[in-house]
Amino acid sequence: MTNPVLVEAFRGALAESRHRGAVAVADADGTTVLALGDVERPIYPRSAVKALQALTLIESGAAERFGLGDEDLALACASHGGEPAHVAGVARMLGAAGLDPDALECGAHWPMHQPSAQALARSGATATALHNNCSGKHAGFLCAACAMALPHRGYVAPAHPVQREVKATLENFAGIALDDERRAVDGCSVPTWAIPLRSLAFAFARFGTGRGLPPARAAAAARLRAACAAKPWFVAGTNRFCSEIMGRFGARVLVKTGAEGTFCGALPERGLGIAIKCDDGAGRAGEAMMAATIVRFLALDPPDRIFCDRFVRPTLRNWNGIDIGALRPTAALTGE
Amino acid sequence: MTNPVLVEAFRGALAESRHRGAVAVADADGTTVLALGDVERPIYPRSAVKALQALTLIESGAAERFGLGDEDLALACASHGGEPAHVAGVARMLGAAGLDPDALECGAHWPMHQPSAQALARSGATATALHNNCSGKHAGFLCAACAMALPHRGYVAPAHPVQREVKATLENFAGIALDDERRAVDGCSVPTWAIPLRSLAFAFARFGTGRGLPPARAAAAARLRAACAAKPWFVAGTNRFCSEIMGRFGARVLVKTGAEGTFCGALPERGLGIAIKCDDGAGRAGEAMMAATIVRFLALDPPDRIFCDRFVRPTLRNWNGIDIGALRPTAALTGE
Repeated sequence: MTNPVLVEAFRGALAESRHRGAVAVADADGTTVLALGDVERPIYPRSAVKALQALTLIESGAAERFGLGDEDLALACASHGGEPAHVAGVARMLGAAGLDPDALECGAHWPMHQPSAQALARSGATATALHNNCSGKHAGFLCAACAMALPHRGYVAPAHPVQREVKATLENFAGIALDDERRAVDGCSVPTWAIPLRSLAFAFARFGTGRGLPPARAAAAARLRAACAAKPWFVAGTNRFCSEIMGRFGARVLVKTGAEGTFCGALPERGLGIAIKCDDGAGRAGEAMMAATIVRFLALDPPDRIFCDRFVRPTLRNWNGIDIGALRPTAALTGE
Repeated sequence: MTNPVLVEAFRGALAESRHRGAVAVADADGTTVLALGDVERPIYPRSAVKALQALTLIESGAAERFGLGDEDLALACASHGGEPAHVAGVARMLGAAGLDPDALECGAHWPMHQPSAQALARSGATATALHNNCSGKHAGFLCAACAMALPHRGYVAPAHPVQREVKATLENFAGIALDDERRAVDGCSVPTWAIPLRSLAFAFARFGTGRGLPPARAAAAARLRAACAAKPWFVAGTNRFCSEIMGRFGARVLVKTGAEGTFCGALPERGLGIAIKCDDGAGRAGEAMMAATIVRFLALDPPDRIFCDRFVRPTLRNWNGIDIGALRPTAALTGE
């Protein structure tokens, strides 16, 4: 099955590039309310499922034991920009569990937030694992390992009890058995299992509503949702899609990007979960696909629509700030 | 027409992302020897035609008058990384024409070469137009304007005589009339005209061989080819595809990337020109498409094949340096 073109990049009057993809929207009963493209093909959800991966942090008792607050829980769900307050937050999480930053096994990279990367270089320092966009998730894994009285070394390995717990959580939410033949290594070295978009949308409908979950699990999901809604900047950062959307809509929208054009999200008031994969891995197109899907399913007043429009149809500017074109959703995506 | 999948990005055992595209290979008589996908659809070639845009620098007499050497001419054809020697070279070109860096109208951005960007920040300086990857091309336009005794302000406008000259050159090489309805603004603010891949491949077959060109024009093309072959580092930079390929093959291969997954090139010994567009604009896939096309048409000995293989099938590594997958060309691309 060839997925449809969902987003086109216009330069002047011509579509310069085009992005195909698939979108699944489902409710917590497992009913699929939208399926664009192949929603049965397993895809690696990468960082788009960080909120599900963070449940172990709550359910292990680590969040309570180490006194973690909204910022910490948002960081555990984050692909952050490595801005100073992100880095300080992750260091604080590790410190609460009695760990040093060298416990992180995610690898180092320069802050994705360019001004922060430049400031870091200007200070004469260099990038560390704390700056890795996944360091908050890793701090969460480490806190969970400590709360479970487990050795934390090797916590990224599929056989480590924390990752086994994460796998069981994903299976429970998605309602499928994960196949270790379809397991790969993520950018930050933890396992990522391929899951169909339809199952991911179902998982996020459950995460967003708590429907069908045991009370303690529903409460853990609600705690993470509340943290992301309260501190959306910690989930991504300055001028980043996830932070902007959740900053505007608060608890009405949960949204999380992942590498290679993946997105997951939930619209609790509609009882819906969303899962998206841009075929070619482009984040710019994944964002437009998610923004258009939110507009399609959330009841928005005119100012909210205008707010969303800059993500659905972002203007493209060149190095001189000249408007040279725009991304535009296709009719297949908007449903109009 | 739906273009074929030419490159897949594998993570573990699964194709995580897939890139469609089109490839045209033609000779200087206009015979198309390979057409994958839609090679008639006009695409913006962006920086992939910088070598054609640089002909005005030679043909205006500017290169001779200002004593420009191989490094300067390679920079005029470059999308450079903003490394110190690139920046110094562009400043030297401008100085030869009696101009300051503020004559550049390309806009500023931080060096694409990350260690150079970090060193720049560490020094307390900031990005300027000299660091823009297109600054060498712009210095070439400015030198041409000076040699033609034209006002240089506004040299990026379509109506400026330098851009009119560039347009006429593109039309001559591609053998088509350029349609101003299909003209857009490039990232560095100069015009870019949409041209079918088939015509771009023909243009580069002519550029690579001189066949069918007046002697002075053939000599100008040969001069630019020789400069890129002699100083390939100045065409891109450290660890960059174009510099690596031309550094290995010298005058046997001319290759130049452009934004949004475009590539043009020439194989003079085969009399062929190449033009490539990755549908979704991904540079990683455009590189693999170009590398596979070179392997398909150039007679290579085993060490050269092994050299190329890391561009045809590059290993993907994560932040810990772990091999997590690879890009792989499809049978449609390799022809095997």
